[in-house]
Amino acid sequence: MAQWNRSGYFRSSGSRDVNPDLDGERQTASFSVERLTAILDGGADNTRTRRAVEAVIHSDPGFSRENQYFQSQNERYETAVRKSVYLKEKMHQMGWTEDGPEIKYCYRALGGDLAFNVHRVFKNSILALGTDEQIAKWIPLADKYHIIGTYAQTELGHGTFLRGLETTAIFDISTQEFTLNTPKISAMKWWPGDLGRSATHAVVFAQLYIKGKCYGLHAFILQIRSLHDHSPAPGVIVGDIGPKMNFEHIDNGYLMLQNINIPRENMLSRFSQVLPDGTYMKQGSDKINYLTMIITRVQILWTEVIPMLLKACTIAIRYSVVRRQSKLNPGDPEAKILDYQTQQQKLLPLLATAYAFHFMNAYVNEFYNKGYTEIKQENFDSLPELHALTSGLKAIITEYCTAGAEVCLRACGGHGYSALSGLPFLYTKLAASCTYEGENTVLFLQTARFLVKCLAAVHSGQPIPPSAAYLYSVDSGKCQAWTKMDFLRPDIYGEAYRHRATRLLGNAATKLQALVQSGAEQHEAWNQCTVQLVQAAKAHCHYIVVKNFIDTVEKLRNEAEIQKIVKHLCDLFALHGIFSNTGEFLHAGYISGDQMDMVTASYLDLLAIIRNDAVPLVDAFDFTDESLNSALGSYDGHVYQRLYEWAQKSPTNQQVSQAYASYLKPLFQNALSKL
Amino acid sequence: MAQWNRSGYFRSSGSRDVNPDLDGERQTASFSVERLTAILDGGADNTRTRRAVEAVIHSDPGFSRENQYFQSQNERYETAVRKSVYLKEKMHQMGWTEDGPEIKYCYRALGGDLAFNVHRVFKNSILALGTDEQIAKWIPLADKYHIIGTYAQTELGHGTFLRGLETTAIFDISTQEFTLNTPKISAMKWWPGDLGRSATHAVVFAQLYIKGKCYGLHAFILQIRSLHDHSPAPGVIVGDIGPKMNFEHIDNGYLMLQNINIPRENMLSRFSQVLPDGTYMKQGSDKINYLTMIITRVQILWTEVIPMLLKACTIAIRYSVVRRQSKLNPGDPEAKILDYQTQQQKLLPLLATAYAFHFMNAYVNEFYNKGYTEIKQENFDSLPELHALTSGLKAIITEYCTAGAEVCLRACGGHGYSALSGLPFLYTKLAASCTYEGENTVLFLQTARFLVKCLAAVHSGQPIPPSAAYLYSVDSGKCQAWTKMDFLRPDIYGEAYRHRATRLLGNAATKLQALVQSGAEQHEAWNQCTVQLVQAAKAHCHYIVVKNFIDTVEKLRNEAEIQKIVKHLCDLFALHGIFSNTGEFLHAGYISGDQMDMVTASYLDLLAIIRNDAVPLVDAFDFTDESLNSALGSYDGHVYQRLYEWAQKSPTNQQVSQAYASYLKPLFQNALSKL
Repeated sequence: MAQWNRSGYFRSSGSRDVNPDLDGERQTASFSVERLTAILDGGADNTRTRRAVEAVIHSDPGFSRENQYFQSQNERYETAVRKSVYLKEKMHQMGWTEDGPEIKYCYRALGGDLAFNVHRVFKNSILALGTDEQIAKWIPLADKYHIIGTYAQTELGHGTFLRGLETTAIFDISTQEFTLNTPKISAMKWWPGDLGRSATHAVVFAQLYIKGKCYGLHAFILQIRSLHDHSPAPGVIVGDIGPKMNFEHIDNGYLMLQNINIPRENMLSRFSQVLPDGTYMKQGSDKINYLTMIITRVQILWTEVIPMLLKACTIAIRYSVVRRQSKLNPGDPEAKILDYQTQQQKLLPLLATAYAFHFMNAYVNEFYNKGYTEIKQENFDSLPELHALTSGLKAIITEYCTAGAEVCLRACGGHGYSALSGLPFLYTKLAASCTYEGENTVLFLQTARFLVKCLAAVHSGQPIPPSAAYLYSVDSGKCQAWTKMDFLRPDIYGEAYRHRATRLLGNAATKLQALVQSGAEQHEAWNQCTVQLVQAAKAHCHYIVVKNFIDTVEKLRNEAEIQKIVKHLCDLFALHGIFSNTGEFLHAGYISGDQMDMVTASYLDLLAIIRNDAVPLVDAFDFTDESLNSALGSYDGHVYQRLYEWAQKSPTNQQVSQAYASYLKPLFQNALSKL
Repeated sequence: MAQWNRSGYFRSSGSRDVNPDLDGERQTASFSVERLTAILDGGADNTRTRRAVEAVIHSDPGFSRENQYFQSQNERYETAVRKSVYLKEKMHQMGWTEDGPEIKYCYRALGGDLAFNVHRVFKNSILALGTDEQIAKWIPLADKYHIIGTYAQTELGHGTFLRGLETTAIFDISTQEFTLNTPKISAMKWWPGDLGRSATHAVVFAQLYIKGKCYGLHAFILQIRSLHDHSPAPGVIVGDIGPKMNFEHIDNGYLMLQNINIPRENMLSRFSQVLPDGTYMKQGSDKINYLTMIITRVQILWTEVIPMLLKACTIAIRYSVVRRQSKLNPGDPEAKILDYQTQQQKLLPLLATAYAFHFMNAYVNEFYNKGYTEIKQENFDSLPELHALTSGLKAIITEYCTAGAEVCLRACGGHGYSALSGLPFLYTKLAASCTYEGENTVLFLQTARFLVKCLAAVHSGQPIPPSAAYLYSVDSGKCQAWTKMDFLRPDIYGEAYRHRATRLLGNAATKLQALVQSGAEQHEAWNQCTVQLVQAAKAHCHYIVVKNFIDTVEKLRNEAEIQKIVKHLCDLFALHGIFSNTGEFLHAGYISGDQMDMVTASYLDLLAIIRNDAVPLVDAFDFTDESLNSALGSYDGHVYQRLYEWAQKSPTNQQVSQAYASYLKPLFQNALSKL
């Protein structure tokens, strides 16, 4: 009755047929899905390369994800290590290089769950902070996985506030060694990935002391496990921090150091070094390091975070045209749940958000490349802006993607809650992204600090960076919309977002100033304004995303069909943002109550329009079934068969329950005589 | 250096000392924690009984939760069965009865993760739908666990829309049997708890056919597994649906029936029966059944849902005074993170929400008891209101509690994401509550339907039920607040909530009427208004909760200290709701922009006030460490030691990694000669 195709995925009755409800949705697309896919990929050539890589990966059983949702923490870790080592071989075999285009498509095809992500950070930190000799010594070993490294910065009691780290490295002139110590439990390194069970080496951040004087945080390389038998080095206490909400494939670890001596050469010394006599020397500017942090943050968004929202939308929207429930019209068959306005309201704004964030890529890249060129030339002027922009975008994007995945999960009812839907996996991974690489509230406040400075520059007539240049525009006073159609004009809603961002920042800055003028200490005044400063930073980032979406639509002028549907998405993203934050637009009367009713009307109209293209719009993301790994979201829409087939593979069905023999059987015997 | 106390929980250095930061918070409480606990428990006698039960449960190693976060799905299931069987023995031994006060305290102490919850629904369905003979036959067996039953209603393709269920039961006059069948894959029973691996029997809902005519859904008892060896009965295909986001301790199952014959006596026949000649007879009113559904929904809120928010707040708030990060004042030590306004803004409104929901209990009980008395007397007048009220409250409470647990999790930074914090467990359990016992959007729309009818009654001068009686009040036009202090007046904010609920309902109803008058079909018009109807239902429920909180504060007039702090919580709950939904209050100008600034100011002031009592306010919930099962939230605040001790018990630290021997060791050999 049922069989599995080559990738292990169920097709009913051996045919390649598609669920007719899902198929019907594809017949009426208002645009070429293939063309939109090419645009999303940045060109048809990229699409071809991507699909070629996906074909290689998916046809190799060594990369199968068939059992992913059934594995224990131990199994997920072991699979991740196996696949990572195997991927290196495979890439070598295929002639794909570490800096070639294929690697990112490999990660996309594999859908996460690889090991050695922090090993890459270990390498990057040596490349950034190490001398040429240090790079020459360590990088070739790390490249080939002949050693596995970790990046040990965060401590049990310290994360965001780096200056508070407590690990010490004391230089001893007599031995020419540093002695590293974990002075108390809160100073134990905690969370570094690849540390718990894999790493042989670590870059450890510690407070450098020379002759009793503290020189602040520095990075040291040390060996933590034997290359012979992997046992912890003497004085090293190391282990795994245990189960998490997800990321079970990663061996996040702990590390305690007890009088570990390392040679002077093991301090990473590109920007500062300790001479044999104990002299401390700084050299060059280490500001370029910030660039590493920034690019890491940005890369995670495009490779890990945003694609997960795209996947969640794909799963939930496909399922919502297969699932039927209740009747819209008495006498009709049960309706597709996507035909309910409440379901559209849950999912279609997320679809628009997915496009909005995907299109941010080009904008941020351009920004980054410009900054990178300048910084390479030792011009650090653009660094604060680059930092503020990427901080805020990281925070808003991870926030929205996490919330979005949760909405998708719940929009699939009970089946969304099954691990086999793939949605719990996506949500629980995204939830972590709100904290790692910068906690979101902290990041929003960094953006806010930048914006407050920009506003001060505006008031004193100084030039301000491009991303905040809108603060100079003159306020138009009131929204100029007269009909609900006016709210489909990007100039109208773009201006509304600009107004809101400017007003919220202005209010927060005014309050801050008033508190300081009334005698509050600067830091106390700042604390009392942080709730409003975070609001202002969010409004700024929201504006940047809307503005970029508007610009993207304009650039599609040679693609009439595509431009039309993308314009609808842009309108929906913008109007949904107003509809969901009405107070911030109504507050000062920029938008009136009557105008807000127009926003609502236009917004609800858009839901009905985009609903017709919802499936083609997620098809355009072009995820393979293997990459989605969802019983609800596969291309053919055979939802119920797949849930049933997959459930049978669960270990809960392959093992006789101990509970029966031990606890239930003796009880059931009592009923035998009575039934 | 470290040791474990009798319950397996870590105390540093063998002493019972409390982290000084946490201890300091307790020294300055503005009220008696013990007195507030007694009020929350409904009297000091209840507190005593509860603590006695907790002492019994926690001193029994058979109920230890020490390994909970390290268990596989199989292990969690087996532990749940073991504990459930053992609890029955223990209760017998202690002389605690099924309807005594101790049982709910047992559940509270055990913190969930028991089996046979749906077995209870199986019993209740027989008690509600069965004849006296059926009850006499099945209930004694079920009571003693001599059989385990499940309640098989939901199907793979059908949940909310019960009329759409596809399982059939065809009566055959010649054999006097019903033949049950699962006609297609989407008709397979899917999700029932206790079905996957435990149940011997099931109450199955199926469409009854007699002589080719369908009589709709009826309930049938059938045996699905052997009492001898637990093998599936002939024609029964049964198994476990596999991994979920949580609830791994429950064997949610699937059930396919192929020509299962059961005797005529196995149809539950209190309200309808099939006579030997095939005559179908209805008798009495089965409306009383709704009461069962309603009380189940309500009980889940008080026993499962709301306590989880109380626990999440306890964990996050205690952690937030132990965790220190960054400096508020240069020169000071790092500040407790609860001293940051942004952290207060995350957690303290949730604390107020936890109290708001806890206090709803009395209100709903009163409502329910009144309805119950009437319905017992065959007076069903209050049923629609009871249904609407409990539907809406279930939806809003599960929604807020789920969102709240997520905020708590993220407010604890990286450590919140560790399973050992207990927060992922709470969040992922709460997430399910938004779907089970009625999907929230569906429930809100049921409340909305009731409200629309009430509004029509108002317009035609008819009487309306008490919970919606406010729709009759005259609108005061504009909010009467002149200073920020005015927003601490319950009459002022209560009226604002009333205004908002009335306005949103009025707008949605007006739109609905306009659409119908312009020729739209009733159901289509309804669909086009559902986004706004859900908003209106939420505003109604929000008002009910605020109103009840205000009434609760008034009733505390003989407890001056307690009344003062609870009043602060009530104010905070109300103002946070306005602050978070500004648009709905600003829209029609009921609250002006200037007044909204006062709301914000009062709201932020309240954060600082409640912050001082935050720890005593969560202490008053009086959860035992064992019930919290959180490395971050224990009473003594030894957060870091406990994380470290618990992590070492993880199976990832107790097993040599296969991955090392197979994949890494051969690679590391290459580095030996170079390092």
